[in-house]
Amino acid sequence: MDDLRKRALDYHQFPKPGKLSVESSKSCTTQDDLSLAYTPGVAEPVREIHADASNAYRYTNKGNLVAVITDGTAVLGLGNMGALASKPVMEGKAVLFKRFAGIDVFDIEVNAKTPDEFIETVVNISPTFGGINLEDIAAPHCFYIENELKKRLDIPVFHDDQHGTAVIVAAALLNALTLQGKVIEAAKIVFLGAGAAGCSCAKLLKSMGAKHITMVDRTGVLDTSRPDLHDNNRELAVAPSAVKTLADAMQGADVFIGVSAKNALDANLIKDMAVNPIIFALANPDPEVLPSVAHAIRGDVLMATGRSDFPNQVNNALCFPYLFRGALDAKAKQITEAMKIAAAHALSELAREPVPAEVLAAYNLQSLAFGKDYIIPKPFDPRLLARVSKAVAEAA
Amino acid sequence: MDDLRKRALDYHQFPKPGKLSVESSKSCTTQDDLSLAYTPGVAEPVREIHADASNAYRYTNKGNLVAVITDGTAVLGLGNMGALASKPVMEGKAVLFKRFAGIDVFDIEVNAKTPDEFIETVVNISPTFGGINLEDIAAPHCFYIENELKKRLDIPVFHDDQHGTAVIVAAALLNALTLQGKVIEAAKIVFLGAGAAGCSCAKLLKSMGAKHITMVDRTGVLDTSRPDLHDNNRELAVAPSAVKTLADAMQGADVFIGVSAKNALDANLIKDMAVNPIIFALANPDPEVLPSVAHAIRGDVLMATGRSDFPNQVNNALCFPYLFRGALDAKAKQITEAMKIAAAHALSELAREPVPAEVLAAYNLQSLAFGKDYIIPKPFDPRLLARVSKAVAEAA
Repeated sequence: MDDLRKRALDYHQFPKPGKLSVESSKSCTTQDDLSLAYTPGVAEPVREIHADASNAYRYTNKGNLVAVITDGTAVLGLGNMGALASKPVMEGKAVLFKRFAGIDVFDIEVNAKTPDEFIETVVNISPTFGGINLEDIAAPHCFYIENELKKRLDIPVFHDDQHGTAVIVAAALLNALTLQGKVIEAAKIVFLGAGAAGCSCAKLLKSMGAKHITMVDRTGVLDTSRPDLHDNNRELAVAPSAVKTLADAMQGADVFIGVSAKNALDANLIKDMAVNPIIFALANPDPEVLPSVAHAIRGDVLMATGRSDFPNQVNNALCFPYLFRGALDAKAKQITEAMKIAAAHALSELAREPVPAEVLAAYNLQSLAFGKDYIIPKPFDPRLLARVSKAVAEAA
Repeated sequence: MDDLRKRALDYHQFPKPGKLSVESSKSCTTQDDLSLAYTPGVAEPVREIHADASNAYRYTNKGNLVAVITDGTAVLGLGNMGALASKPVMEGKAVLFKRFAGIDVFDIEVNAKTPDEFIETVVNISPTFGGINLEDIAAPHCFYIENELKKRLDIPVFHDDQHGTAVIVAAALLNALTLQGKVIEAAKIVFLGAGAAGCSCAKLLKSMGAKHITMVDRTGVLDTSRPDLHDNNRELAVAPSAVKTLADAMQGADVFIGVSAKNALDANLIKDMAVNPIIFALANPDPEVLPSVAHAIRGDVLMATGRSDFPNQVNNALCFPYLFRGALDAKAKQITEAMKIAAAHALSELAREPVPAEVLAAYNLQSLAFGKDYIIPKPFDPRLLARVSKAVAEAA
């Protein structure tokens, strides 16, 4: 870690601080250029947009510009680090948006005392942008914030920590179920972690057909007798029964999806799962169980994690650039459930196709084929942009 | 104008809409790059900034990032066009900041119902930025907004329409007075227009020694008997006297500074000015009086306008890029009167020096020398960056 630490700090500091640069996309060398870019010529597009707001998509960068906005309350796995300290993460997100989908991003770190103040701030600056990517906002405020902004704005609003993760999990799970000989409708699915990501994943899987989902958090199984549930996870609670703990829920489970913490899945519980179990241990950087540990316990397990150094990385970068690309291209006013499902299917289909040589080269691999160690495309797969964005735009 | 209109719209629309692009300033091609730019490496600068806020200047773009923020209430000479329609102007400003001083800019268009709501919004998003350039906000709200933001933020806040114009006017006037054989302390100076720019110019000139300033607006001379003055222009009002109108004020005036409207200076009034008069007719694009008209009336006049196609253009691009460059380089917490005066002196001194060949080439000129037709540097003068920024940083 000390080497990574030094390399990461050097990367951010040298040769100049930070990771972003704002450039002119038009020629700007002569006085004539300036007379078009600024006064007097700039008055013309101003008049056009004043006459018809949709002209902002014709004459400004609005239609390719996404705000990555945070309040810094749930930064990576680090918790509430505050707005300012989250800036490197938001700049990094901007880097990924540009690298994978050509989308321009302004990172905006918001110091707000209440969720309502955060919402007002985002609403007030929203004319600037073609879309809003909410990032690293703690539950349960994140649900309220996203819902209110969706109601009040006519541009796409998307909380990536919830729905980005959900799309990738859904895509990976579709393929994992096929490979393990299961169907989503019959699969017994256990979630450990009922925060933003867990709830959004569970809801997306329900809308794709899952019927047997048990949510578990630190207190135990979420059932409707619990007084501590909130609006967002109450709808996922099951009827009260003898199944109270994670250990209870894991008896005969087909799928475990962890969005919780390091080593939260006791290795013994893996033995209690059904044949051909599926384990997505997504806590980062330390998963709920290491693949080596799970595979040592039983040979029939299929695993995914959030880590790039293990097979089957559940990586949000597979979703958010292309989801926004599709939404912006279609001038969608919001990101719908149908658009998310379309993205999940496009991702899962792509993983079942032969892998091009350039992808193998990017990852220094001799071969890679659909199977238990490859259920989801690699982030540097250049087919993602056309495939996923197109599917999203068509669903918009 | 039809040709300019078409060229300006084409410039903004093709090959893609708008004028800005956000790029990664660091290598971002391999999985290893991404592991530094984003997870897991990005956690390291987050921890460093969380431990010490000043590390944001080391590991993020904050220290080179200025927000150009407007509410769209006073866009160019077009008036209240609204937040969205002002976006081409704000993008244009970003282009100039980058072109002349290498400063990254996010343009932010704010839809706020009240000045206080605007202020709260800017305060809330301020962790993102190293400085705030307020732009095209109508008087008198602009004064309150700027004052409150200066009080509440520990990064430079600068309303360019007020103070940018003031710095250039001061720089040009210093040289104009020398050439016309006058001194600032004795000069009788008349302002037509007592809005944001006029008031800020008058205050800066006072702080540089001017003692005989008369402000005139549509109602007439601003004197202390007028009930319609507000906090910002009351301090510039003179004691009531027989001098009530622009015509009264122009009797024997040494300097006329117009920040008002097309043809607002009746040609006859020019005859009433003192010998060797100075006329800055800054209304844009149509000045208070055309240079050809003024020169036809009397041969001893020295003129400046806001236009690039006449000599002596009072152009804000000569100030704001370098003022912010100096302020950011010095990590100044605000932009002080001393920094503005330093910028004015640096600009005026530069105009008195020989003009390099590359400047002549940029403007297709055979020669250019300090005199009545060259009292202020040209925007494409590459010496500006080092000279003005350094003077500002030293004054910070």
